[in-house]
Amino acid sequence: MTIKAYGAHAADQALVSLDITRRAPGAKDVRIDIAFCGVCHSDLHTVRGEWAGTLYPCVPGHEIVGRVSAIGEQVAGFKVGDLVGVGCMVDSCKHCAECDDGLENYCDHMTGTYNFPTADAPGHTLGGYAEQIVVHERYVLKVRHPEQQLAAVAPLLCAGITTYSPLRHWKAGPGKTVGIVGIGGLGHMGIKLAHAMGARVVAFTTSASKREAAKALGADEVVVSSDAADMARHAASLDLIINTVAAPHDLDRFLTLLKRDGTMTLVGVPAEPHPAPAVFNLVGKRRSLAGSMIGGIPETQEMLDFCAEHGIVADIEMIRADEINQAYERMLKGDVKYRFVIDSSTLAGK
Amino acid sequence: MTIKAYGAHAADQALVSLDITRRAPGAKDVRIDIAFCGVCHSDLHTVRGEWAGTLYPCVPGHEIVGRVSAIGEQVAGFKVGDLVGVGCMVDSCKHCAECDDGLENYCDHMTGTYNFPTADAPGHTLGGYAEQIVVHERYVLKVRHPEQQLAAVAPLLCAGITTYSPLRHWKAGPGKTVGIVGIGGLGHMGIKLAHAMGARVVAFTTSASKREAAKALGADEVVVSSDAADMARHAASLDLIINTVAAPHDLDRFLTLLKRDGTMTLVGVPAEPHPAPAVFNLVGKRRSLAGSMIGGIPETQEMLDFCAEHGIVADIEMIRADEINQAYERMLKGDVKYRFVIDSSTLAGK
Repeated sequence: MTIKAYGAHAADQALVSLDITRRAPGAKDVRIDIAFCGVCHSDLHTVRGEWAGTLYPCVPGHEIVGRVSAIGEQVAGFKVGDLVGVGCMVDSCKHCAECDDGLENYCDHMTGTYNFPTADAPGHTLGGYAEQIVVHERYVLKVRHPEQQLAAVAPLLCAGITTYSPLRHWKAGPGKTVGIVGIGGLGHMGIKLAHAMGARVVAFTTSASKREAAKALGADEVVVSSDAADMARHAASLDLIINTVAAPHDLDRFLTLLKRDGTMTLVGVPAEPHPAPAVFNLVGKRRSLAGSMIGGIPETQEMLDFCAEHGIVADIEMIRADEINQAYERMLKGDVKYRFVIDSSTLAGK
Repeated sequence: MTIKAYGAHAADQALVSLDITRRAPGAKDVRIDIAFCGVCHSDLHTVRGEWAGTLYPCVPGHEIVGRVSAIGEQVAGFKVGDLVGVGCMVDSCKHCAECDDGLENYCDHMTGTYNFPTADAPGHTLGGYAEQIVVHERYVLKVRHPEQQLAAVAPLLCAGITTYSPLRHWKAGPGKTVGIVGIGGLGHMGIKLAHAMGARVVAFTTSASKREAAKALGADEVVVSSDAADMARHAASLDLIINTVAAPHDLDRFLTLLKRDGTMTLVGVPAEPHPAPAVFNLVGKRRSLAGSMIGGIPETQEMLDFCAEHGIVADIEMIRADEINQAYERMLKGDVKYRFVIDSSTLAGK
């Protein structure tokens, strides 16, 4: 079946309207009529070929929500009409230790929602800037939010789970103080989620202008990271830091804010490494510098359910598909609060 | 009381015989007639002023074993004649969260066994290259090994606890595979301890010549880290790595050997930072890079008891006090298997 999508034919070309095909649903597949798709920084890096290995045509998008329009004969968990989501992956090996543990995101054969090899035409996965997607039911999530929130649910599928997973893994909750570094697409979700988990939240930003916005998101305190005195006041006070900043920066300024046995988890991967952290800042208080990458399917469902229960969605700005190139330019300037979401009904150019 | 010690008057001077004084034992103090003192790399760095802040005269030594020769009136845990040890610290604040948790090593006011401020003459602590030491009983450990092993127990007080603490904290044991990087004073203890805890042990060395020795210490496998093919065979296979190498080196080569959720713990602090690790190696498998510094008093006692029970001591080479300068030169060349220990009876020049 041929459908409308938005993507690029080459790294140096703008995204344009494309016709792509999707496979007919297999026995365990779910076909989803996409309603909305969030716009992630990874989309931009990939489609512009800023990371090695982009395959063209490239259709980005891995914050997908919509409604089931067809199911294979062996699909057990979904029916036509269900509100569903698809995040950063559409397949994995299904039998390794990671898959068995429900951490398919760490499977060596995880298939990303776009730009990964697949048997389907054109030989690599095409993402959610499209009218439809066909996905094995294991990688489809139930959306339990009210339908009118659907667009704002989309970013939970990447920005939400990327911060939720480390917050849960490193046990954010009552009695814990959690730092969130960076108040963008990921950081604004990190603040909301850590707050809803009952942690005390300290947000770190380079922009004093984001202070009130961060408090509105749920931060108990906001520290402008260039304010050395304020940073010093927070030394050895945090149990956990989720660092969402993907640009290379001085990690030591944040590592020293961790208590003994605290962990700073990086969730962004900069093109160049961060400057080397001082070993003594790890050794002196048994601190850890860790990384975390999105989340597994069971915990993504848990996150969506947690958000539905707590009334949490992303703060979004809706765009038409033909505004995507302009949206990328604004995203590069940090000019979005906090996530663009494409209205998929505009893909057909109407 | 004036006693004999060995130390240096300045960074550029050799260690020589010195007369020093110790305080009379206070109510909670234990006076120890030192029998043996291990020789740690930190001793050399400190006495030669290679780290900032060395105070002179400097008497190093924090791997101390001996016999109690006097106790204060309120000492409850020791009596004259007991075999005891003293490690890297002789005091701490005794009321912070770290002290309350028995992790005095992470107390902000921990007093190191040498080169830390103290009320005693000459105003900074003087270490174990001496005939006696006077220490608050909280920081004195019971030695339950047979007396004939006493000299080889000394290095447990630093090299032993420095590896034991992270092995326990990160849960080395049956079913776990533990890497030990570097086979020196710390590494040889790490191999013995991880093996005794029931873990499978993979030792990493730059010297193929250490292969058989590492196996004799208890390594199940030895990998020469310059052998790229052998390193690649161990990718994503280790639960925990204790990295004892204090010289700057490429951490990524070891981080990639960790399984998902694995931790590499640094126990050495290089003068210059290691090259920056690649963020993707942390993010891609939720790995951690951590640090650990010696251990608390309760776990140091636990380590000594564990070693007594399992018949574990350090492999040592005994020296006379007046051989210390030469021993330092050999230590710098890695020419020691695996720890020098000073026979304290030679301090008087006999």
